[in-house]
Amino acid sequence: MSKIMAINAGSSSLKFQLFDMPSENIITKGIVERIGLKDSIFSITVAGEKKKETLDIPNHDTAVQILLEKLISNKIIHSFSEIDGVGHRVAHGGEIFKDSVLVTDEVLNQLEKLSELAPLHNPANVSGIRAFQKVLTDIPSVAVFDTAFHQTMPESSYLYSLPIKYYQEYGIRKYGFHGTSHKYVSQRAAEMLGRPIEELRLISCHLGNGASIAAIKGGKSIDTSMGFTPLEGVVMGTRSGSVDPSIIPFIMKKTGKTADEVLTILNKESGLLGITGFSSDLRDIETKASEGDARALLALDIFSSRIHQYIGSYAARMNGVDAIIFTAGIGENSPTIRSKVLTGLEFMGVYWDQSLNYIHGEEAVISYPHSLVKVLLIPTNEEVMIARDVLRISDEMFVLS
Amino acid sequence: MSKIMAINAGSSSLKFQLFDMPSENIITKGIVERIGLKDSIFSITVAGEKKKETLDIPNHDTAVQILLEKLISNKIIHSFSEIDGVGHRVAHGGEIFKDSVLVTDEVLNQLEKLSELAPLHNPANVSGIRAFQKVLTDIPSVAVFDTAFHQTMPESSYLYSLPIKYYQEYGIRKYGFHGTSHKYVSQRAAEMLGRPIEELRLISCHLGNGASIAAIKGGKSIDTSMGFTPLEGVVMGTRSGSVDPSIIPFIMKKTGKTADEVLTILNKESGLLGITGFSSDLRDIETKASEGDARALLALDIFSSRIHQYIGSYAARMNGVDAIIFTAGIGENSPTIRSKVLTGLEFMGVYWDQSLNYIHGEEAVISYPHSLVKVLLIPTNEEVMIARDVLRISDEMFVLS
Repeated sequence: MSKIMAINAGSSSLKFQLFDMPSENIITKGIVERIGLKDSIFSITVAGEKKKETLDIPNHDTAVQILLEKLISNKIIHSFSEIDGVGHRVAHGGEIFKDSVLVTDEVLNQLEKLSELAPLHNPANVSGIRAFQKVLTDIPSVAVFDTAFHQTMPESSYLYSLPIKYYQEYGIRKYGFHGTSHKYVSQRAAEMLGRPIEELRLISCHLGNGASIAAIKGGKSIDTSMGFTPLEGVVMGTRSGSVDPSIIPFIMKKTGKTADEVLTILNKESGLLGITGFSSDLRDIETKASEGDARALLALDIFSSRIHQYIGSYAARMNGVDAIIFTAGIGENSPTIRSKVLTGLEFMGVYWDQSLNYIHGEEAVISYPHSLVKVLLIPTNEEVMIARDVLRISDEMFVLS
Repeated sequence: MSKIMAINAGSSSLKFQLFDMPSENIITKGIVERIGLKDSIFSITVAGEKKKETLDIPNHDTAVQILLEKLISNKIIHSFSEIDGVGHRVAHGGEIFKDSVLVTDEVLNQLEKLSELAPLHNPANVSGIRAFQKVLTDIPSVAVFDTAFHQTMPESSYLYSLPIKYYQEYGIRKYGFHGTSHKYVSQRAAEMLGRPIEELRLISCHLGNGASIAAIKGGKSIDTSMGFTPLEGVVMGTRSGSVDPSIIPFIMKKTGKTADEVLTILNKESGLLGITGFSSDLRDIETKASEGDARALLALDIFSSRIHQYIGSYAARMNGVDAIIFTAGIGENSPTIRSKVLTGLEFMGVYWDQSLNYIHGEEAVISYPHSLVKVLLIPTNEEVMIARDVLRISDEMFVLS
């Protein structure tokens, strides 16, 4: 029995979940917000009750110190040595990391080098790792990558048709993201279907504020909609998804903006927000749509049609599909989007039950029993995947040493 | 009976076909090349024989004068007045032109305004129109647009999810191209299948040096792979097709290139040329691939897999498809690409006959009789569509006047 901490560190936030393993029970969880800003907020759930405090937390080091002290003061642990390992979500593992890895000094150097591919995320992830290492000096840290699961993609999926030197010299290729989530739900899907994952063709729709679709064959990602960055693919909360790249130079010329400024528009002001003009939050948009708002209705159409088409595309990639999975905030909770995405897939054998589609936030099979293609709702759980990998990688280390 | 000229004017070239209408027989055809450069070349087919001359042709006006004189000197016509109308291929009709149109001064002004959306093509097209109007002053000119057929796309297909002002103020949306070709082959498909086009769901694959796929429902384009410009969509001879837009600013930073320079790389140095490093010509690549060249094999895989996936995507868009059409240079002539594109579509009912797939350059049905989805080879004919539209639009004018 061991206690494993799963950490997701952003530039000004740090989410944590402490697991009892291998039971996978959550002992506590919480979040530190507004790190480095005024009035930082520390939230933690103790015995089912959420406690919230406003504190001064100038950096990740302090955030981690406070977190660990709070674990003791709330009697969740009695000493730091009770924590057996810490797993960190890391945005980008490039082509180096095809699986989770025990963090060493060399690994930290490599993560910092990869920051050029994920300038907003990797430095924050590294800060989180270093902060824990300072306090928990003898405990294994494991890095779990958003990109690793997609490293099984074949060259014909991941290579853009640019001159090859842009791949060889600068690493420009499709990496894909949300890998930990796609991996988790694909494994759960196999369990729910009672079939070996090796024989399954799955399409996983991770639909949150960021969204990506993955084609998973025999348990391995063979294609995914996000690309070199999380901008590519389907329409998202504030991201445009795939657009004609010529649009960037065109807008630059028209407005005098720089390339980076246009890229910021595509990342932060587009997607559902761009279409509706009022919100990136699907719940707001569904409310407005139910009132007949034309732009809200259009946003729902565009958002769901792009996903619908990716499903067709990935079904073609695998010459059919055994199950379609919906996960993450929208995937788990929006019957409207699921209905729009699934309608018109009868040609490939997708038959689903309207009356089951209203389930949300729990695992369910919403296809009819006779449907050739199963439709599954699976709440994602990246944290438990992180905890599992800490255990697995620590065990491997133990065996090797 | 009338004689109609179909013209395709580029910046340094002018292709022509003179049709006898309504028989649609080609009276003569040819091309003027290297206009404005040294050693311009004039080629014309007279009584089945191709004649070629090197001349000094400084501009489109001269090219047209020489062309018309050659028609007389070769006794193809006896006087200019025998030509009853001239149809011009025009790259970009924006949202204004949803069909071919009789060219007036107002239309010419609009075409010039649209040059900002097609800076390489529309000005050349306009030069071609003006050159003919100077000589054939009383003969109707008709503009036939590459974009017009796709103007039936619904908002949910053509709108990118950028902030809406980029559409409203700058016209940034999906336009689509190759419309005349997609329209021609979809009409021929209905004739070949002996079914009313209104009830058909077609996927048309126009695969030439430029390539685009269209979803055509009830005779109307409802989606297509090319977008704001012909860069978007599938991989092409030298164009990358869709890539993560973030790549443009990333390459700019890495290399110090301007946005326009990177765009030129995506348009002129990518695609099949980018992957192979040696050619944009599929015939060269197939030759190398047959010798086992790894990059050539990869290029064939990437090129065909993107088309394969578009077919899945558009089948999902229409909840199934009645026929898949191959046209243009590669679509008509490459059994290798067709085979790679079609393999693995059995899940949606595509069954085709390997022994018929070797047909090239002529109309054929290569699916098995029992195949739910028919597969058609249809040589495209944009020129005859131009000639037909000249006749149709001139007749409408006659009725109206």
